[in-house]
Amino acid sequence: MSQVERPGRHAPTLEEVAEHAGVSRSTASRAINGGLRVSPEAQSAVDRAIVALGYSPNRAARSLVTRRTDSIALVVPEPDERVLSDPYFARTLQGLSAALTDTEIQLVLIIARRDDGTQRTARYLRNQHVDGAVVVSHHRDDSLEEVLAGSRLPCVFVGRPWQSPETIQYVDVDNVLGGRRATEYLVQVGCRRVGTIAGPLDMAAGVDRLAGWREALAAAGLPDHAVARGDFTSSGGAAAMEQLLREHPDVDGVFAASDLMAAGALEVLRAHGRAVPEDVRLIGFDDLGVAASTAPPLTTMSNPVVEMSRVAAEVLLDQVAGRATSHAPRIFGAEVVVRASA
Amino acid sequence: MSQVERPGRHAPTLEEVAEHAGVSRSTASRAINGGLRVSPEAQSAVDRAIVALGYSPNRAARSLVTRRTDSIALVVPEPDERVLSDPYFARTLQGLSAALTDTEIQLVLIIARRDDGTQRTARYLRNQHVDGAVVVSHHRDDSLEEVLAGSRLPCVFVGRPWQSPETIQYVDVDNVLGGRRATEYLVQVGCRRVGTIAGPLDMAAGVDRLAGWREALAAAGLPDHAVARGDFTSSGGAAAMEQLLREHPDVDGVFAASDLMAAGALEVLRAHGRAVPEDVRLIGFDDLGVAASTAPPLTTMSNPVVEMSRVAAEVLLDQVAGRATSHAPRIFGAEVVVRASA
Repeated sequence: MSQVERPGRHAPTLEEVAEHAGVSRSTASRAINGGLRVSPEAQSAVDRAIVALGYSPNRAARSLVTRRTDSIALVVPEPDERVLSDPYFARTLQGLSAALTDTEIQLVLIIARRDDGTQRTARYLRNQHVDGAVVVSHHRDDSLEEVLAGSRLPCVFVGRPWQSPETIQYVDVDNVLGGRRATEYLVQVGCRRVGTIAGPLDMAAGVDRLAGWREALAAAGLPDHAVARGDFTSSGGAAAMEQLLREHPDVDGVFAASDLMAAGALEVLRAHGRAVPEDVRLIGFDDLGVAASTAPPLTTMSNPVVEMSRVAAEVLLDQVAGRATSHAPRIFGAEVVVRASA
Repeated sequence: MSQVERPGRHAPTLEEVAEHAGVSRSTASRAINGGLRVSPEAQSAVDRAIVALGYSPNRAARSLVTRRTDSIALVVPEPDERVLSDPYFARTLQGLSAALTDTEIQLVLIIARRDDGTQRTARYLRNQHVDGAVVVSHHRDDSLEEVLAGSRLPCVFVGRPWQSPETIQYVDVDNVLGGRRATEYLVQVGCRRVGTIAGPLDMAAGVDRLAGWREALAAAGLPDHAVARGDFTSSGGAAAMEQLLREHPDVDGVFAASDLMAAGALEVLRAHGRAVPEDVRLIGFDDLGVAASTAPPLTTMSNPVVEMSRVAAEVLLDQVAGRATSHAPRIFGAEVVVRASA
């Protein structure tokens, strides 16, 4: 019996629910909004009053007025739940949560598979089940920019969107500069045959870090043939390292575009009897925990994921609140963190 | 300008939006519901028509009729995002996703911190932003049973709820039996001083696996003094193994209540020069990937997390649809998986 079906009917108020239940207005409100610090008896009385009066406490009636759901989504367009074990996501969640600490906004995480799952997520987002979305781990073909740029849903990307970067706000680390600095470091410590384990080339971070590697080698007058593609996972890095050793056995330095790939490469180098850093110097990217725990610990590039995500959430909250924000992307730097592998 | 504020006003229909935009009804519908396979021009015309007519395509108006959000939540009451790196969660998501494959229902993941975050999540759930909730990794003090049992929100726990197990539907593995079988196995292969690294004792799985260990030792007439508490993490397992070796240096078998804890214990045993399985036999619990990749690989107990989660989602969908379901818990068995550590 909804208000839409019977528009002439008087909609019961919170006060009437409280009176019917024989509790105070504030108890009724607490019972409706979460039920903490409410006795089971009071909760039960309020629940009965809600049913008896046809009171609609849910988001539907409320959000017809406010148009708010008090939630934002972190959207991860990856085919597989295993991606969650990548520390990148825990750090992203950490940054978003920090920005939401003093708000009433609930963070929800959505894994948008790139089959029919993307369409389901598109509907969910465009139907405004959330007030806004942060997109991370975006790939060329997931069509999320199309969906989001065409909707009025506030959104911010962590990592440059593949298309429409001029219409979608985003935060990013300077991946070209990061790739260049990592490679310059290898050259500076003496490497002359520098390979790379590239990230996925349907992601901006994969393309940009590879471009930085090429820039640094061009500037140093060194060849840039030794490229193997990985997928930002440890097993992908291991397979790429096998390929590099097979095709370029004289490689003396490797820039892996993520620490997980570097960790996989490290095991392959060990299995082939190549000492790190003595025979092959190896530098990674991310510094989110993995790099400090490998043997030897990885020299790597810092990636301020927590801070980037915090800023992304703040930009999103500004959009949701209708506050004017600069449309310029927020770009963070990446620095060499020297440990033992290079 | 909502329907609630001006109930006498005619609410614009989808047909009027399509006419105003100069597109077909189905194009207007696709533009409103996700925007895939819609030209940018048509999308833009529909967007303008929505604004001009004050059409309300969002979930608010729709769900006043259906009361559906077409989403269910996986609620994880843990204080820290790092919990996502535990393969248990990826497997839980995998099972839930499998059950939702052929539905229009979006899965959203919520990490409900046990400070003020629990109250925020309680409000979110009770305000029916989702059609139902699956709760996993539940702790004694997270108050989620109180919130959910007092609400009308459909819910299913993966793992026995701490309170009210008679009113909340749940699926679980038989943790007492699993702990007993693991310990019986150690006794059977010759261990006489059998310790345990217990899980958190504010979780049913922690308490029950410990109870199973005690049952098996009592049945074998062996002492049950050697208990150290872990927290289901690798570092927690390492600290607990240090404690066991300090307090019970003659231990010759250890049942760790999770594989992550067993992996941590394995490194401590190696550091102390105790060979596994020659000096100390070690058995874990879960078999979700970690056990097969340690050195030596872990003998462990199977834990059908994917299947449990799939069933939990099916039970939840029955509740959401108002279909009658048996209220009995669905309990799964756990079997010994023999590898090299015991």
